[in-house]
Amino acid sequence: MATALIILAAGQGTRMKSDLPKVLHPIAHAPLLVHAMKSGAALEPDRTVIVAGHGAEAVEAAARDHDPDVIVVRQDEQLGTGHAVAQARAALEGFDGDVIVLFGDTPFIRPETLAAMAAARDVHDVVVLGFEAADPGRYGRLVMAGDSLERIVEFKDATAAERAITFCNSGVMAARAEVMFSLIDALSDDNAAGEYYLTDIVALARARGLSAGAVACDESETLGVNTRADLAAAGAAFQARARAGALDDGVTLAAPETVFFAHDTVIGRDAVIEPNVVFGPGVTVESGALIRAFSHLEGCHVSRGAVVGPYARLRPGAELAEDVRIGNFVEIKNAVIAEGAKVNHLSYIGDASVGAGANIGAGTVTCNYDGVFKHHTEIGARAFIGSDTMLVAPVRVGAGAMTASGSVITSDVPDDALAIGRARQEVKPGLSRKLFEKLKAAKARQQKRD
Amino acid sequence: MATALIILAAGQGTRMKSDLPKVLHPIAHAPLLVHAMKSGAALEPDRTVIVAGHGAEAVEAAARDHDPDVIVVRQDEQLGTGHAVAQARAALEGFDGDVIVLFGDTPFIRPETLAAMAAARDVHDVVVLGFEAADPGRYGRLVMAGDSLERIVEFKDATAAERAITFCNSGVMAARAEVMFSLIDALSDDNAAGEYYLTDIVALARARGLSAGAVACDESETLGVNTRADLAAAGAAFQARARAGALDDGVTLAAPETVFFAHDTVIGRDAVIEPNVVFGPGVTVESGALIRAFSHLEGCHVSRGAVVGPYARLRPGAELAEDVRIGNFVEIKNAVIAEGAKVNHLSYIGDASVGAGANIGAGTVTCNYDGVFKHHTEIGARAFIGSDTMLVAPVRVGAGAMTASGSVITSDVPDDALAIGRARQEVKPGLSRKLFEKLKAAKARQQKRD
Amino acid sequence: MATALIILAAGQGTRMKSDLPKVLHPIAHAPLLVHAMKSGAALEPDRTVIVAGHGAEAVEAAARDHDPDVIVVRQDEQLGTGHAVAQARAALEGFDGDVIVLFGDTPFIRPETLAAMAAARDVHDVVVLGFEAADPGRYGRLVMAGDSLERIVEFKDATAAERAITFCNSGVMAARAEVMFSLIDALSDDNAAGEYYLTDIVALARARGLSAGAVACDESETLGVNTRADLAAAGAAFQARARAGALDDGVTLAAPETVFFAHDTVIGRDAVIEPNVVFGPGVTVESGALIRAFSHLEGCHVSRGAVVGPYARLRPGAELAEDVRIGNFVEIKNAVIAEGAKVNHLSYIGDASVGAGANIGAGTVTCNYDGVFKHHTEIGARAFIGSDTMLVAPVRVGAGAMTASGSVITSDVPDDALAIGRARQEVKPGLSRKLFEKLKAAKARQQKRD
Repeated sequence: MATALIILAAGQGTRMKSDLPKVLHPIAHAPLLVHAMKSGAALEPDRTVIVAGHGAEAVEAAARDHDPDVIVVRQDEQLGTGHAVAQARAALEGFDGDVIVLFGDTPFIRPETLAAMAAARDVHDVVVLGFEAADPGRYGRLVMAGDSLERIVEFKDATAAERAITFCNSGVMAARAEVMFSLIDALSDDNAAGEYYLTDIVALARARGLSAGAVACDESETLGVNTRADLAAAGAAFQARARAGALDDGVTLAAPETVFFAHDTVIGRDAVIEPNVVFGPGVTVESGALIRAFSHLEGCHVSRGAVVGPYARLRPGAELAEDVRIGNFVEIKNAVIAEGAKVNHLSYIGDASVGAGANIGAGTVTCNYDGVFKHHTEIGARAFIGSDTMLVAPVRVGAGAMTASGSVITSDVPDDALAIGRARQEVKPGLSRKLFEKLKAAKARQQKRD
Repeated sequence: MATALIILAAGQGTRMKSDLPKVLHPIAHAPLLVHAMKSGAALEPDRTVIVAGHGAEAVEAAARDHDPDVIVVRQDEQLGTGHAVAQARAALEGFDGDVIVLFGDTPFIRPETLAAMAAARDVHDVVVLGFEAADPGRYGRLVMAGDSLERIVEFKDATAAERAITFCNSGVMAARAEVMFSLIDALSDDNAAGEYYLTDIVALARARGLSAGAVACDESETLGVNTRADLAAAGAAFQARARAGALDDGVTLAAPETVFFAHDTVIGRDAVIEPNVVFGPGVTVESGALIRAFSHLEGCHVSRGAVVGPYARLRPGAELAEDVRIGNFVEIKNAVIAEGAKVNHLSYIGDASVGAGANIGAGTVTCNYDGVFKHHTEIGARAFIGSDTMLVAPVRVGAGAMTASGSVITSDVPDDALAIGRARQEVKPGLSRKLFEKLKAAKARQQKRD
Repeated sequence: MATALIILAAGQGTRMKSDLPKVLHPIAHAPLLVHAMKSGAALEPDRTVIVAGHGAEAVEAAARDHDPDVIVVRQDEQLGTGHAVAQARAALEGFDGDVIVLFGDTPFIRPETLAAMAAARDVHDVVVLGFEAADPGRYGRLVMAGDSLERIVEFKDATAAERAITFCNSGVMAARAEVMFSLIDALSDDNAAGEYYLTDIVALARARGLSAGAVACDESETLGVNTRADLAAAGAAFQARARAGALDDGVTLAAPETVFFAHDTVIGRDAVIEPNVVFGPGVTVESGALIRAFSHLEGCHVSRGAVVGPYARLRPGAELAEDVRIGNFVEIKNAVIAEGAKVNHLSYIGDASVGAGANIGAGTVTCNYDGVFKHHTEIGARAFIGSDTMLVAPVRVGAGAMTASGSVITSDVPDDALAIGRARQEVKPGLSRKLFEKLKAAKARQQKRD
């Protein structure tokens, strides 16, 4: 059956104490909303409708940035989850299939769980996602009769026997589109909060003689985010899963609890990640690469046999070929580093290409910015860049060429040539001693005055 | 009622295996003693008396450094807690109010707890702070009769019934000064250790017909420090509390367990702190600032919209205005960085001021030290400092001025001027190849010899 | 009684999903096998025999690297643990004493446990190491009759009563060499897997009227490594033990969970280790040294009173004398730094010696590599190296000498002399403004075109 997603993302999230709409707070460098979209994408939906409200423009931008085909509708007044779903009606005009309602602040529903819900729709008209709660607290309870969901009871309305139920409501629901919207039409706001509750459609469905069922997921999947502490806990849950996944894939993590993955990090088998490594978005690390301690990678590719760090920072556009070495206190940005090249110490290589086997000395800087424009630096294969070379871009150092340490290179260096741009050393005998004596005398005078 | 504090801080702390007096071991960059002083300060005491013994000079210095008005008295022989309190008598001469006895190695008593003790003094002559122990072990037990504290029983003297009591003695006590010292006078050292125990004043008070009561606090508040492991556990407890507090205040901590706060760190709402950030003392971060991974801050101020790190080190006196960018492998010390200025890569800016919108190139160093004196560097608004510029202080680069990369700037640069101090680049065609051939030949000869 | 070790290290470790043989995966910078060898070394064995199979050459190399006297034998076909032990027979020719069989993937057996096994051999012919399992799962069960081990029952063959036993088989065994090999000879491969099981020797021994006994160890000692997750868990167990040990020794660890020790790290009393410090192999830190946050040390020595970091990287051969200061973004490799010398910022000191009290300015680099050879730099006592000095090795800067900042030093500098190698600063009034105006005009034209 064709599927459409409705993702509710209109809430302000007051308890986050933030100017940022709740669903845009990130976990592992993706907004909560994008995590929910990625969950739902496992169903290969025909349409995805985001119901935005607070900070709708920013929410729409983030949703489209992840998936340009998404439909974003507005819920201008926050009149409850049922009202939110109703806003998606026009966007699903003409859609004849199942609708599943997800929440933009609930990032961790697994594909298997959504597949189970889709399957349960073959049996029941309305399917609710439930979970066995370790501490059911004030959650709504799912009252089951065999495989059939009788009703959802809010905690405050539940009898003692119903409160003893530990199978609770996640809020996630599925039904055929026309059924869903027909039930939504029948919702009433005649309750204390004056809101239209999506959960009420179960009772309405049963009253119409429709069947309802429930699918169980793990409680951790339904973890919602309402506070910064929840956000941190969700982040920790994401990391725990990502670390376990990497270990399962044959990655060595010497201290998994100190490695932070992004939502899209890809690491190959037999790669080794030392302690205290942070991955931003867009990183791939091939098999057998070594990422040493205290490294920070984002938007980059590290090939087989490459060694990165410690204290290496790879920024977006860093492409490391096989057996490249990037050492300590080195920043690489928007630069292709060819096979076997080395940038071992205290350098900034940005907007550049570095040829195979080139050796970049300590303290080298590609001076890529003139205050207005950015320019490119090209370093040829087997070039030897002396320490503290300033490469004033745009500039090219040829293959096999050499720069003398301390040189400022402002014009191209031909292949195999040596470029030098520095003053000759002079020695002034005894002058250091004289200078120090003068300074110390000044110090003594100063101390006498004080 | 006026209050005075007596903080016992004379112990050696043998189990710390340290040359440093126990109460001077730090948690979150403040000595244990200072944490205890800060706890007690919530009572706004008229006088605070520290009883020092082992390492008394260092203890006194640390106490005065935190609060110059503190009175430090000496306990030259360690004859028990009662004897320690007795040393404070002269310092409280003429004080007519409540005395509360705290411990310098017990850093976590909450203000609410001390307020509850002060309130309980309205009812009881002597008030003891107790706690429900998860594992009462060998703690002294508080034998209560309703609201009244009958006596404190040491574990070794306790009956089986008394040992079943889980309400235990923290050692913290309050009484009116004259009552406290009168009871102290009556203490005896007729016990196995030959010491005067403060806890014995409860029995003495009851014997005189005075009333005694107990206030309960959470066991975690009474956590004392006797070993390095205790110290680490207390540090962890502090961090857990500080992280939860920051989250509550609307700070985003992507991985709270990797962020280390100092005792006085202040972070604004909607600030984002990435993983692996360490705060030393004296840091304030305004709302909406971003502190990226692997940053280290102490004694500095970061304004709204500023972005710091990754791998930025802000040292004391770093003042970052709004929208400043401090990038990787950059150290800022005693320097005011004005609005929108950027120091993005591999630089040391110390004893300096940087004007609004200035751009500091990679590898820039303020050469602030001549071997004897430190000097100041001034960089004007919108100045463009080329990469690898050495600014030999004292020196001023004017507003809108520029330095060529690789220059050593030893004299002032006027506004809008360009300063350049570098040799012209020369190219020696083919020389790199010749040099390499020579080196490789030498290598070949060497390998032949070996 | 003389003892010989047989360490089984032939397995492939399929579940590791690795090209590296399982026993070579490291914990705390030593292969699992070396941890097992170090465990066994507590018995001061006369001979140590490693049974290698998968990746035997690499396994042999690693074993010999740790202990050149080790005997490595091959098990070319993997026909079970009994068959593996049989391969050691020739290597133990003429050895008349106890043999103890350990496993190369079980790194944490304690010396006390092995001593208890040796002692139990005075009573029993065959001694098995068992443990009380929290969750016995599918482990083999040790069926005891008083102090006597009746038999080892595999889980699949166990009765319900036997499955209720929680005392389980670790696989580690001891017996006199001739007894061990005689029993091995009697093993049969008449089982589902067609393998010779070492555990079967217990039943064979009992059948011959020999006695068998068991020694109990803590379950954590028998932690074996089969997956990357196991490896990470074993690493965490190692670190927990190492951190607790350091605290016990009087080391301050502000945040123990963020400090990573190597298998051979040595830290003195009253040393302070800040958060996020990583130790590679071969590090000693003396009493009272301070290792600041985000530091990375390997193969180095840090003396009393030295301060390292934050963000300092000490590489092999870094020798820091007393009161040395190594600051942020500084790399030290194969260099002796004498008493009180300072390298505070953004420098690379490699293949060098630095004299007492010398001060190395920010951005200093020892240019030790010419593309083929490495050369040495010598800096004299009290020398003052100006910021951004390039020291082109081989080169010597004399005692009390000074280099001007921005100089490239290619020839020796005598004692007390000043060396300078830089161009004179020129100022072009108004040129910065003109250049910026030109660039901005170009930008405006470009934006118009776009």
